[in-house]
Amino acid sequence: MTRFPCPAGLPAVAPLDQSLRAELQQIIDTRTKPPGSLGRLETLARQMGLIQRSTRPSVQRPVMIVFAGDHGIAAEGVSPYPQAVTAQMVANFLAGGAAINALSRVSDVALEVVNAGIATPLPSAEGLVDIPVASGTRNFAHEPAMTHDEALAAMHAGAARVRHHAALGSNVIGFGEMGIANTSAAACLMSRLCGVPIDECVGRGTGLDNAGLARKRNVLASALERHADARAPLDVLATFGGFEIAMMAGAYLAAAEARMTILVDGFIATAALLVADAFQPEVREYCVFAHASNEAGHRRMLDYFGAQPLLSLDMRLGEGTGAVLAVPLLRAAVAFVNEMASFDSAGVADRDA
Amino acid sequence: MTRFPCPAGLPAVAPLDQSLRAELQQIIDTRTKPPGSLGRLETLARQMGLIQRSTRPSVQRPVMIVFAGDHGIAAEGVSPYPQAVTAQMVANFLAGGAAINALSRVSDVALEVVNAGIATPLPSAEGLVDIPVASGTRNFAHEPAMTHDEALAAMHAGAARVRHHAALGSNVIGFGEMGIANTSAAACLMSRLCGVPIDECVGRGTGLDNAGLARKRNVLASALERHADARAPLDVLATFGGFEIAMMAGAYLAAAEARMTILVDGFIATAALLVADAFQPEVREYCVFAHASNEAGHRRMLDYFGAQPLLSLDMRLGEGTGAVLAVPLLRAAVAFVNEMASFDSAGVADRDA
Repeated sequence: MTRFPCPAGLPAVAPLDQSLRAELQQIIDTRTKPPGSLGRLETLARQMGLIQRSTRPSVQRPVMIVFAGDHGIAAEGVSPYPQAVTAQMVANFLAGGAAINALSRVSDVALEVVNAGIATPLPSAEGLVDIPVASGTRNFAHEPAMTHDEALAAMHAGAARVRHHAALGSNVIGFGEMGIANTSAAACLMSRLCGVPIDECVGRGTGLDNAGLARKRNVLASALERHADARAPLDVLATFGGFEIAMMAGAYLAAAEARMTILVDGFIATAALLVADAFQPEVREYCVFAHASNEAGHRRMLDYFGAQPLLSLDMRLGEGTGAVLAVPLLRAAVAFVNEMASFDSAGVADRDA
Repeated sequence: MTRFPCPAGLPAVAPLDQSLRAELQQIIDTRTKPPGSLGRLETLARQMGLIQRSTRPSVQRPVMIVFAGDHGIAAEGVSPYPQAVTAQMVANFLAGGAAINALSRVSDVALEVVNAGIATPLPSAEGLVDIPVASGTRNFAHEPAMTHDEALAAMHAGAARVRHHAALGSNVIGFGEMGIANTSAAACLMSRLCGVPIDECVGRGTGLDNAGLARKRNVLASALERHADARAPLDVLATFGGFEIAMMAGAYLAAAEARMTILVDGFIATAALLVADAFQPEVREYCVFAHASNEAGHRRMLDYFGAQPLLSLDMRLGEGTGAVLAVPLLRAAVAFVNEMASFDSAGVADRDA
């Protein structure tokens, strides 16, 4: 893997501190259960203990940040929904009526909505973090979506939102997104950063039919050809990305810097992680891959990270809905480590006793 | 599938009432998300709506019942743990120190522990439902584990526990178990009821080594040969089952009769469902298969039911730990149906608008 220099000023991610590994494993293995029998909950508990440098890991004020932005590429007809839906859905988030609202509430997870760069004017609404870089990106069928400065500004803005929540005590965070046509941006990021042919990166998004899918493939293949020189991560991000994706990329780095456990959502969110990972691959060690999206290409992205997602529920909505569903599993992982008796303390005979 | 007569007095399960199906689907499809994009949450919401005969399904007072019992077959050395561990673990449940305690607490799920027939005397402890049929079953390597009367008494007792919780308002229920050597009982039930060779039903249980696994296979193959005539479900249950398994079988039927959503746990719990299903296959329609156990054989059992489990976390503990982890997913399913805005109410443009 080529490691690219990380632009100055972005968060610095340290490799995961392994010093408590043996002690954590010992605690996990002496709980009253056959060794290994809690499977993925055991690896989660160990990872969270390492991230938090604690033998009593916890889930504190878990939070989802949903970044929303518009994409110039939408003009090419790559989505069955009109661009105005980005702003309409943000209004829906702020009114509490979207899927991520319902799922965050029921999981007792805080939710923040960020205007990263929406094209349509938004009605003023309480609760919005209104920090757009611009009113949507440019159309990368013709020109780069962002300048380097815009992409970097978005990364810094995303990092700042994470630091805000770290200061409030959050130690678990997930990122969601909204942006009509952003599966097109994510597919191009994936193709270029993972070296995968574009046809294997393109899916139906919110529900393209066969003709729409063919059109999307053609548009994106041409765009990749036009921007054949964009190879370095910041170039790739600026050329094909979006403001919400760039904010997420910065947010991943800041969350790892703050030693938070990061819940990775679906196709777009994982594409943003590809960008962060291209700068600082240590970020992976802080990530929990929450779910496998049904969007074509996501499984292949997960393979790129060597990731086994926790959930596989045939979902493909975005907004962070896959990530938030994993929060109860994190709570379960810390609960068993902190609350279960040991064989000794419970007076239970260990095997072959 | 041969349908066997259900013994008189057992709960009667009605086929799932489908009359609200179209209305539920309409509600699901008009929430502000691409159709189908919430995947398994959508099918869960529909199933719960049908079970509850409501377009506003709910999760009310979810409860886990853990049934514990001992098995005469333990004398054949089929488990690496001594039989006394069954009683010790029940004491651990009552003290709140086992995995199912930690996971139930963190998921806000009620927990009941039932002595279905433990061999070792239990210290008196508050909170135990102490209704043993006998002090452990007989050794089915030599003779049937239970009489028909014992098996039926256990089924009725399990059904009664479910009715108790239905009366308290529970509409979601799961069943767990504890019983040294009960993977041996479950493997024989599976082999006989599903017509699968015993070697494909036998796994390492709590952690047998290769020699132990070979021994377990031999013991169970001989037992199945000795009891070649046990074919009718009640015969099969009485011959190979256990008191905790028989109580679970009755509990499944009562839960379906009471129109509860039933969370199916792992290898033992699914074996008990095989018994219930042999009497009244309608019980399946009330079941949510919560997780895929790592115990060899469970995947094949799930295939028998045509089931896609919700979770696949490499767990193999029993106690209901897989089932309880699915409760947050049920809560998420009802939350999206009940709380999300529709395209109309939110003023969001639908596709191709």
